[in-house]
Amino acid sequence: MRTETTFATDLQRKIDMKTKPLGSLGRIEELATQIASLQATLTPRMETCQLTIFAADHGIADEGVSAFPKEVTRQMVLNFLQGGAAANVFAKTVGAELRVVDAGIAGQPFDMEGLLDRRIAPGTQSFLSGPAMTQVQCEAALEAGRDLGVGGDWDAVAYGEMGIANTSSATVLTHKLTGAPIDAIIGRGTGLDDAGLARKRDILTRASARTGELTAIGALCEYGGFEIAMMAGAMQGAAQAGRIVIVDGFIASSAALVAVRMAPEARKAMVFAHGSAETGHRKMMAAMDAQPLLQLGLRLGEGTGALLAWPLLRAAADMLNEMASFDDAGVSEPA
Amino acid sequence: MRTETTFATDLQRKIDMKTKPLGSLGRIEELATQIASLQATLTPRMETCQLTIFAADHGIADEGVSAFPKEVTRQMVLNFLQGGAAANVFAKTVGAELRVVDAGIAGQPFDMEGLLDRRIAPGTQSFLSGPAMTQVQCEAALEAGRDLGVGGDWDAVAYGEMGIANTSSATVLTHKLTGAPIDAIIGRGTGLDDAGLARKRDILTRASARTGELTAIGALCEYGGFEIAMMAGAMQGAAQAGRIVIVDGFIASSAALVAVRMAPEARKAMVFAHGSAETGHRKMMAAMDAQPLLQLGLRLGEGTGALLAWPLLRAAADMLNEMASFDDAGVSEPA
Repeated sequence: MRTETTFATDLQRKIDMKTKPLGSLGRIEELATQIASLQATLTPRMETCQLTIFAADHGIADEGVSAFPKEVTRQMVLNFLQGGAAANVFAKTVGAELRVVDAGIAGQPFDMEGLLDRRIAPGTQSFLSGPAMTQVQCEAALEAGRDLGVGGDWDAVAYGEMGIANTSSATVLTHKLTGAPIDAIIGRGTGLDDAGLARKRDILTRASARTGELTAIGALCEYGGFEIAMMAGAMQGAAQAGRIVIVDGFIASSAALVAVRMAPEARKAMVFAHGSAETGHRKMMAAMDAQPLLQLGLRLGEGTGALLAWPLLRAAADMLNEMASFDDAGVSEPA
Repeated sequence: MRTETTFATDLQRKIDMKTKPLGSLGRIEELATQIASLQATLTPRMETCQLTIFAADHGIADEGVSAFPKEVTRQMVLNFLQGGAAANVFAKTVGAELRVVDAGIAGQPFDMEGLLDRRIAPGTQSFLSGPAMTQVQCEAALEAGRDLGVGGDWDAVAYGEMGIANTSSATVLTHKLTGAPIDAIIGRGTGLDDAGLARKRDILTRASARTGELTAIGALCEYGGFEIAMMAGAMQGAAQAGRIVIVDGFIASSAALVAVRMAPEARKAMVFAHGSAETGHRKMMAAMDAQPLLQLGLRLGEGTGALLAWPLLRAAADMLNEMASFDDAGVSEPA
């Protein structure tokens, strides 16, 4: 019987015997270790990746916390379905599949091919004066997410989101779950000007003062969004199914934080794609002991950063599976 | 006639009208601007990439400045030709071609299919007591590099290297060309221990004290390597041919610095792939006003970092060519 320690030793030895100076592939070696450990094999598979974009609307958008009007959620979902958004383009660039889930977009349900209907309600309530969603809605969203995360046969899954004002939701979740002062983590989201930022600051400060300490699910009910809750569920489901979960930027990280608080073992499956420009992101990374792979100044969402990290995961597995060892290649080791 | 200013305005407008918040793709937008400007078109092509690995030996290796024995240069070239090195694996992962050039490996010439023979000599002289190469050799290496850089029909080219002890060469070049104190930029290369580091420090301090201020070509003759000189030539040739030049880590950056000092306009073609763990790398980046794309703790060379940056360049061009505009997609712009 191979013990865990033996596996870790064998894995490290396999990496160290590759024809390269010890540790010289840095974070790629760390990724290889994570992937192989998650799949519990020295020859892991990392060939297929699916990005799921969860879209939903937020009652808090009506308070004017975003630079974009609320109808942009719906418009962008059409853009995803027509293949014109950044996420579509990058998915093609890096060879990942893409699907879009309606987790609760405002207005009437779509009747569009290619859109998965998992609508909880036509948007959340404004969390300025009360909870964004009921506990029943929250649990339904988590459950729908878990089902989506467990299904399919992907080596890695990436999660992205679309939801005007969801930076506000993620900000208050960060505050409640990490204890970071709300004032320190309010950012410009998709591009607020100074007046807009002041307004957002006022709204979020009042909203967060409405409650005291909260559990992960409690915070999700009070301040979450349907896309965030569903993502948190999907991350748990995918981690449980042994898939690598590529976490995108600020919003997706708030879902990851909820997921990790609910199911700490999910953390092992997570790869954090990029450092978001939003201030609160660093607080969440620290709370999850995570170091994002890329620093590209991205602040778009949609899973775009996760997609750009996917080739690094493939490279890590390929290194483990295909690189020659010193013995294979007849290369001398260091003196 | 379209002026340069009009082109820059049109390009920025095209990027800003894509369905995303203004500037939200960060460095990817910068890359798109660089690529389109270099190709002087709003619809640039970024589909093919070739990595050339230049291999050569260094007389200074005989002074014991590297953790690896000198014969590893030759052994690793065999490994490249057999497809077993990290560069081979990553090239396959990201869809780039790879070729290997013998710029001056010690010993007899190879007789191996797939190896380009551009040998200047069987390794440089030790630069501890005299110049590494003659001016005639240096110019021959630059010229051979220029020819290799100009040829072919690649949208982007990446340059990597193999040459035991070439970190020492790149370190003294950095010192001579940026003015950074030699003591501050001596690093462990591929993995020296403390005693090895002390020895390297002694050797490089004495070697660099041998000369005063030097021109780029002067520094190359005194302290360069054939692979570094040939890379510097190739970078100039490729830049002149309008190709994106993806610069790998510490050694390749020293070649880039030589190239930019000789032909400043070459800088426009250059994309710096990753921040090397070597201390001197930051000095060179500052000297070229460059901000590396990736921070992955790589210190392998061979062009491995350049290869991992290649998908980001494709994503940038794809963004420009394939993403829908607000008008195309019927998406509302910010209020």
